[in-house]
Amino acid sequence: MCQLLGMNCNVPTDIVFSFTGFATRGGLTDEHKDGWGIAFFEGAGVRLFVDHESAIASPVAHLIKSYPIKSKNVIAHIRKATQGQVALENCHPFVRELWGKYWVFAHNGDLKNFAPVLNGPFRPVGTTDSELAFCYLLQQLREKFGNVPPTTDMLRASLEALTSDIAAHGVFNMMLSDGSALYAHCSTRLHYLVRQYPFTQAKLSDEDLTVDFSEVTTPNDRVAVIVTEPLTTNETWQAFGAGELKVFVEGTPLH
Amino acid sequence: MCQLLGMNCNVPTDIVFSFTGFATRGGLTDEHKDGWGIAFFEGAGVRLFVDHESAIASPVAHLIKSYPIKSKNVIAHIRKATQGQVALENCHPFVRELWGKYWVFAHNGDLKNFAPVLNGPFRPVGTTDSELAFCYLLQQLREKFGNVPPTTDMLRASLEALTSDIAAHGVFNMMLSDGSALYAHCSTRLHYLVRQYPFTQAKLSDEDLTVDFSEVTTPNDRVAVIVTEPLTTNETWQAFGAGELKVFVEGTPLH
Repeated sequence: MCQLLGMNCNVPTDIVFSFTGFATRGGLTDEHKDGWGIAFFEGAGVRLFVDHESAIASPVAHLIKSYPIKSKNVIAHIRKATQGQVALENCHPFVRELWGKYWVFAHNGDLKNFAPVLNGPFRPVGTTDSELAFCYLLQQLREKFGNVPPTTDMLRASLEALTSDIAAHGVFNMMLSDGSALYAHCSTRLHYLVRQYPFTQAKLSDEDLTVDFSEVTTPNDRVAVIVTEPLTTNETWQAFGAGELKVFVEGTPLH
Repeated sequence: MCQLLGMNCNVPTDIVFSFTGFATRGGLTDEHKDGWGIAFFEGAGVRLFVDHESAIASPVAHLIKSYPIKSKNVIAHIRKATQGQVALENCHPFVRELWGKYWVFAHNGDLKNFAPVLNGPFRPVGTTDSELAFCYLLQQLREKFGNVPPTTDMLRASLEALTSDIAAHGVFNMMLSDGSALYAHCSTRLHYLVRQYPFTQAKLSDEDLTVDFSEVTTPNDRVAVIVTEPLTTNETWQAFGAGELKVFVEGTPLH
């Protein structure tokens, strides 16, 4: 299994604090040491960092923890290999282009007897069930909507049906973003919180680190953090329901 | 205009020496300060680093110069904006997947009245003529070869025709790689050399740095370096002919 971390905000925000706690689970406080990755949207562009070293040993992860890249949508992943060897092409997040936008995807779980027919333009490069599921998702969306990108609501409805179908094959916690919204599907375990005014202190559970967000924010900032297991000990995290898909836009979960 | 750097080898090799000289042109010894990028194949996977900061100021470029990532195929680019604003989505190299492989592309030049019809699965995310040309190239290759990836020779013949068509619109120096071969097309300026046994010293032209490759290689190593302008002062670089396409495999230019 693996762990997922996502961030969706109304202003570009750095993820140094959350990633520091999360990366500690990549080999130190937890066993997810078979690679890691993180993707940041910056405007329409994406910065993708992937590494098959563990997140605690990787010089690239060290860069991310010390260099505050600001983004409104971030997806990160630490891997404990279930299907597919430890190799760069099997590290999440995966990125593909559809409708002239980049799509970023990461998955936690394990799919059994999942062998969809891929007849379209999206093919896996690596050997994970996760990249296969991502290619299948994009293929189905492209088939359904053709050359006209759907609205967020239309996409949500399609993703609810598609993720439910895929989750029938096993565990399918996943995050997907096109840079404007972050879609998170919970099959077994996913939590989130929204940080907004009045901001308070937050204390990491995996490392001795506390940040007072009131010192580094403005009253208008809003940040949603979505993660497999809660990252802090003194904030209230909401658990997703099994089978629930949530859409985050501008730091807020849509209802 | 921009500058291009490519490397194709028979064993995974680090590009620290060449990139150090090349990155100096990104704002210090030359004017290419509107972003930069570098892509490394590692097996079937790709590490892509892009930044809209100049290569001399970028913390990510500093990482590349100090952290020896080994690869058999590398493409790097420093940008002086001609078309498309300074933004992450306009930084080369660009990456797309076709036939279950990643394809990496970078371009130096400027295309005029170039407006091909894109009816297929590849659409630009940014606003450069370069990404448009890349999407067009992949679309035409997919249309021609369908679901069956061509051999290197078949691909070379198609690329010769396609690059010639595109170059009719202006300057089109470009590099393309799928991780097994590196295709380089010269419209106006491109040079290469092959380093092999017996290895000697090489001295950078843009920085006071010398490496004795005989100390860091084995007699079987072979490395082709392809670049807009020669990187060293004491080696013999071959100039490409105008309109010439060369294919490099395992550190050797094919004839």
